[in-house]
Amino acid sequence: MDVAGVLIGLDLLGIFVFALSGGLVAVRKELDVFGVIMLAGTTGLGGGFLRDVLIGAVPPASLRDWRYLLVPVAAGLLVFRFHPSLGRMERLVTVFDAAGLALFCVTGALKAQAYGLGPLPAALLGMLTGIGGGIARDVLAGRVPVVLRGDLYATPALVGAGLAVVGVQAGLPTAAVAGPAALVCFGWRLLAIRRGWEAPRPSGGASV
Amino acid sequence: MDVAGVLIGLDLLGIFVFALSGGLVAVRKELDVFGVIMLAGTTGLGGGFLRDVLIGAVPPASLRDWRYLLVPVAAGLLVFRFHPSLGRMERLVTVFDAAGLALFCVTGALKAQAYGLGPLPAALLGMLTGIGGGIARDVLAGRVPVVLRGDLYATPALVGAGLAVVGVQAGLPTAAVAGPAALVCFGWRLLAIRRGWEAPRPSGGASV
Amino acid sequence: MDVAGVLIGLDLLGIFVFALSGGLVAVRKELDVFGVIMLAGTTGLGGGFLRDVLIGAVPPASLRDWRYLLVPVAAGLLVFRFHPSLGRMERLVTVFDAAGLALFCVTGALKAQAYGLGPLPAALLGMLTGIGGGIARDVLAGRVPVVLRGDLYATPALVGAGLAVVGVQAGLPTAAVAGPAALVCFGWRLLAIRRGWEAPRPSGGASV
Repeated sequence: MDVAGVLIGLDLLGIFVFALSGGLVAVRKELDVFGVIMLAGTTGLGGGFLRDVLIGAVPPASLRDWRYLLVPVAAGLLVFRFHPSLGRMERLVTVFDAAGLALFCVTGALKAQAYGLGPLPAALLGMLTGIGGGIARDVLAGRVPVVLRGDLYATPALVGAGLAVVGVQAGLPTAAVAGPAALVCFGWRLLAIRRGWEAPRPSGGASV
Repeated sequence: MDVAGVLIGLDLLGIFVFALSGGLVAVRKELDVFGVIMLAGTTGLGGGFLRDVLIGAVPPASLRDWRYLLVPVAAGLLVFRFHPSLGRMERLVTVFDAAGLALFCVTGALKAQAYGLGPLPAALLGMLTGIGGGIARDVLAGRVPVVLRGDLYATPALVGAGLAVVGVQAGLPTAAVAGPAALVCFGWRLLAIRRGWEAPRPSGGASV
Repeated sequence: MDVAGVLIGLDLLGIFVFALSGGLVAVRKELDVFGVIMLAGTTGLGGGFLRDVLIGAVPPASLRDWRYLLVPVAAGLLVFRFHPSLGRMERLVTVFDAAGLALFCVTGALKAQAYGLGPLPAALLGMLTGIGGGIARDVLAGRVPVVLRGDLYATPALVGAGLAVVGVQAGLPTAAVAGPAALVCFGWRLLAIRRGWEAPRPSGGASV
């Protein structure tokens, strides 16, 4: 299996775990089977759609390759059928979700950079690629996006994306940059989950 | 009146009935006259916007032809003025809405195919063209999209879009494919309404 | 300072005040620091993103110039730190917000026209540029967009955008058109706030 194959495999894995999280939210909202598949697909593919539309890479890559469409459908059907077990495996899903985030923020930033964006916008788009699917999932499910509500999620994505961008700017080979950047995001996110880290909230919000 | 004229006429009719449904939701949410027009326009044009942005057909066709903008405004004003009567005609609106869905899913899929997408993505984009406006309407109105909540709506759209794509792939002329594909979607949707068909829900959702 | 510099300065000012309003909503929703910055950025940049994606001007201008990204971050951090004082300055924020609206609707319409859109679509896109950020802010914050709920907000934006478009169509120089059009929108919006003007609501909404 060559490098491109590994990358596509990792990409599909990221879509799969994001889609699992979307399907589980749909089950909790008591949506029907189509709602489960739809939320699974939105969560898995939404971040990449957002990135590709903003950088002008349309049609998005995921619309040109049928595997990108079948993976979230399969994830949705799995959740629909086996959601009680998956609900119990929530800790495992969270770990996979962190892996998806790490992968998406780095590949998103590198793709944006390849389309000519400067370092700061590329890092921002990398972060959006990582968090966009979850935001779309929560908006469709009728709740304020989790990423806005105190879970330390966006910061590791931005840092991972930023490291990848800086590394490429510094002339390092992409392959040498992507792995460590993704690992930083992944490790940070896992530590944030395990230790219950939260982003700071406004002081005295009630006074406004 | 030639074929192109008939197609545009059907397209405008689809936008009109979708816009009526958006306006009625706005009235129920007690929005003001601008909210009614805005939701009418979002519902009528949203699906096509989504499709055109994703396949790179920008600016969307509806922004290049003033008729596509005046139709939803007219629908919104009609709802604003006559909503008690239109509310009573809800059954009729539902039939028109099914017609709009049937039309949009087929024309959306054919347009996506014409822009070079493969069969599966083209069918998916056809479905999104049909359901996108209603999703945007519901998100703006602050409710979980109806299409995710058990109404059998997306499946007929996907099947209609898929039939159109398969027919064109098989070498049949577009004109011979579009009508039957739209009729299948339309008939299925009407049967689903009349018989109260619903998509299956997850078993024991409360256990999660 | 030349004309282009003035325009960019005004644009950044508009983004800044819109971002302030987004940050204040986030504080009220008790979001964390990232949520505050994210809502600030969405509100400040969302309208321009929507316009640029719809007219095919991607990547959006705001992704090519780091100042467009730093301004909403700065506004978000300011709100996060000083929100009690800013909450008391709400009247001032409202005036700045009206200025942002006036600026965005005119520059949005002119940009759409420069990309080849006809007068009516260009005016509509101008209005969307002005109101789009606030709509995205409210959807992410889990509330029905303010602009749909009776505040007289979209009409001045549409009129300002329309005046700019008509002026350019009539052959007047852009510089001579933009100022008065923005002033009409600004003045109308301020009067609407001061006098409590509201858009009309449907009669007997409860009867539906």
